[in-house]
Amino acid sequence: MNYILKDQNAVYYECGFSCDNELLLSLGSEKFFITDPRYTTEAKEKVQGAQVIEAKDLIKAAREILRKSRIKSLHYDPKEFSCADFAKLESKLSLSFKKSPDLSWKRRLIKSDHEIALIAKSAELNAQAFDRFATRLRECEGVSERRLHFEAVAILTRYGEYELSFDPIFAIGPNAAKPHAYPSDQILKRGDLVLFDGGIKYERYCSDRTRTAYYDEEFSFKKDQRFENPRIQRAYDLVKKAQEKAIEGARSGMRAKDLDRIAREIIDRSEFQGCFVHSLGHGVGLDIHEMPFINSRNDQILEDGMVFTIEPGIYVPGEFGIRIEDMVVLRSGKAEVL
Amino acid sequence: MNYILKDQNAVYYECGFSCDNELLLSLGSEKFFITDPRYTTEAKEKVQGAQVIEAKDLIKAAREILRKSRIKSLHYDPKEFSCADFAKLESKLSLSFKKSPDLSWKRRLIKSDHEIALIAKSAELNAQAFDRFATRLRECEGVSERRLHFEAVAILTRYGEYELSFDPIFAIGPNAAKPHAYPSDQILKRGDLVLFDGGIKYERYCSDRTRTAYYDEEFSFKKDQRFENPRIQRAYDLVKKAQEKAIEGARSGMRAKDLDRIAREIIDRSEFQGCFVHSLGHGVGLDIHEMPFINSRNDQILEDGMVFTIEPGIYVPGEFGIRIEDMVVLRSGKAEVL
Repeated sequence: MNYILKDQNAVYYECGFSCDNELLLSLGSEKFFITDPRYTTEAKEKVQGAQVIEAKDLIKAAREILRKSRIKSLHYDPKEFSCADFAKLESKLSLSFKKSPDLSWKRRLIKSDHEIALIAKSAELNAQAFDRFATRLRECEGVSERRLHFEAVAILTRYGEYELSFDPIFAIGPNAAKPHAYPSDQILKRGDLVLFDGGIKYERYCSDRTRTAYYDEEFSFKKDQRFENPRIQRAYDLVKKAQEKAIEGARSGMRAKDLDRIAREIIDRSEFQGCFVHSLGHGVGLDIHEMPFINSRNDQILEDGMVFTIEPGIYVPGEFGIRIEDMVVLRSGKAEVL
Repeated sequence: MNYILKDQNAVYYECGFSCDNELLLSLGSEKFFITDPRYTTEAKEKVQGAQVIEAKDLIKAAREILRKSRIKSLHYDPKEFSCADFAKLESKLSLSFKKSPDLSWKRRLIKSDHEIALIAKSAELNAQAFDRFATRLRECEGVSERRLHFEAVAILTRYGEYELSFDPIFAIGPNAAKPHAYPSDQILKRGDLVLFDGGIKYERYCSDRTRTAYYDEEFSFKKDQRFENPRIQRAYDLVKKAQEKAIEGARSGMRAKDLDRIAREIIDRSEFQGCFVHSLGHGVGLDIHEMPFINSRNDQILEDGMVFTIEPGIYVPGEFGIRIEDMVVLRSGKAEVL
């Protein structure tokens, strides 16, 4: 299969390098990494298994390579190219462009042992940062969500040493009821519910983790939590159970939607029916959200080597939100927590 | 003109609100803001001059509105839509889709007095942060670029109060020779050249500023700088002169390329011919890079109300890089520094 890629993580996966302006062409046994003069020197040092082509106009250079080659068809991901770029690429070329949605995600679906080791390291560093952040939070009564969000960024990145895999979510009480909460001026106080969702990148591989916890002087992100409000406690215990049962029940060979159902049924059979408003999880790798998507509609068969999150939640608008998230890898047919 | 927009800043400009999943349709005198259920409540509070439509599938909802309307043509920016989204949008609709590159940027080219006031405030807050960062740097001999990059983020954002308009560049000595340097483990020491390029957002409007300075105990980002190395001093004085002359020479009614030429000639007639490797500037507004682009090929006429950067530089690979950047607005025919 001949194909063209533009997305940075898609290109990185193919040749071990990406910058912020590149195209990758894979034509039979040959690969071409096309970039502009700013990046040629570094590309020549780092690109593996592809010829580095320097060009001011990347699409024009790709067209020239395609014109000289004798290929008859080229696959591309229609989500990856804008109408403008694609029109310029295909114009007057006598070859057939084939739509191939999620082309790179499909290639990256089964992780190698090396990739799993990098993701595990990312998850380990992330878990350590969660612990350090929890310790820091004990001293932070009276501080705003916004400032604590910044503290979280500082601690997750080790003051800039690592990149974030996404903008972390730090939400107190009712603000946690929004699955994608933005930090506000709300102040942290004793007795609050705290939801924290964060992740970093290690050698470009992402991690992702969420904990919900009760704020007092012994604050920590351990999974065993005690809340004053009995309704919140019931919701927390259900989310914890739903996550445990999904992790225990995950099997290679199972459909994604059947895994989603294990967690969803536990919540939907309770007083919190309908309060688990998002999908159970998503793949994690070079992208923070990639295949496989663990939701109630996805028929995809889960397989050994897939890495994804398991993150059930209960959200009661205006009151509270609870989510517990870990990453797992399927190995020897079962889920191992990373 | 009927049009559809998808980009967040493009949509915000039309109706004073955007989230991270929306489409805006402008059909004759009617506008429609289409978003998913996560954002409907906030959209109904904040969207001005457009009807809020809730939909799980935004493109499907847009198609329904288009089908019911009697419009014959719809403009769109081919850079703004992926092939996949556009194919879904246009399929089997009996209306003509017109390519309109830079549709939103063209609408946003001349800033209103209110927008200029917001950009000026953004620039003022940014300049204050530069001064605070300079004071902090005096205590930072022996600290790495990477850690100082993080300090810069902390100070620019006021520990999370403001958003960055882009990831700032903090580069020492030879690393400053790369116009888009990434922070390294290099350590700051007395006698170093420091290049710092940063900006924030104030009510979504961006600022952008660069200073180059000599590192010693009296370190500051003032424009009058003294370097030990006479060649660096000559380069610095040329960049400073090129910037001053471009600001003085900017006129409404002038072509962008003629403004670029004022600065470029000063550098190209010196021993540093060819070392000014990028364009003179770019528009700044809701996007950090928008129209007008001030480069050697752009015939666009500059007009009152346009806001852009003036940022000449000299880059000597492996040795040093110098850039001085301010934002200006054209008012009463001339450039005022913001």
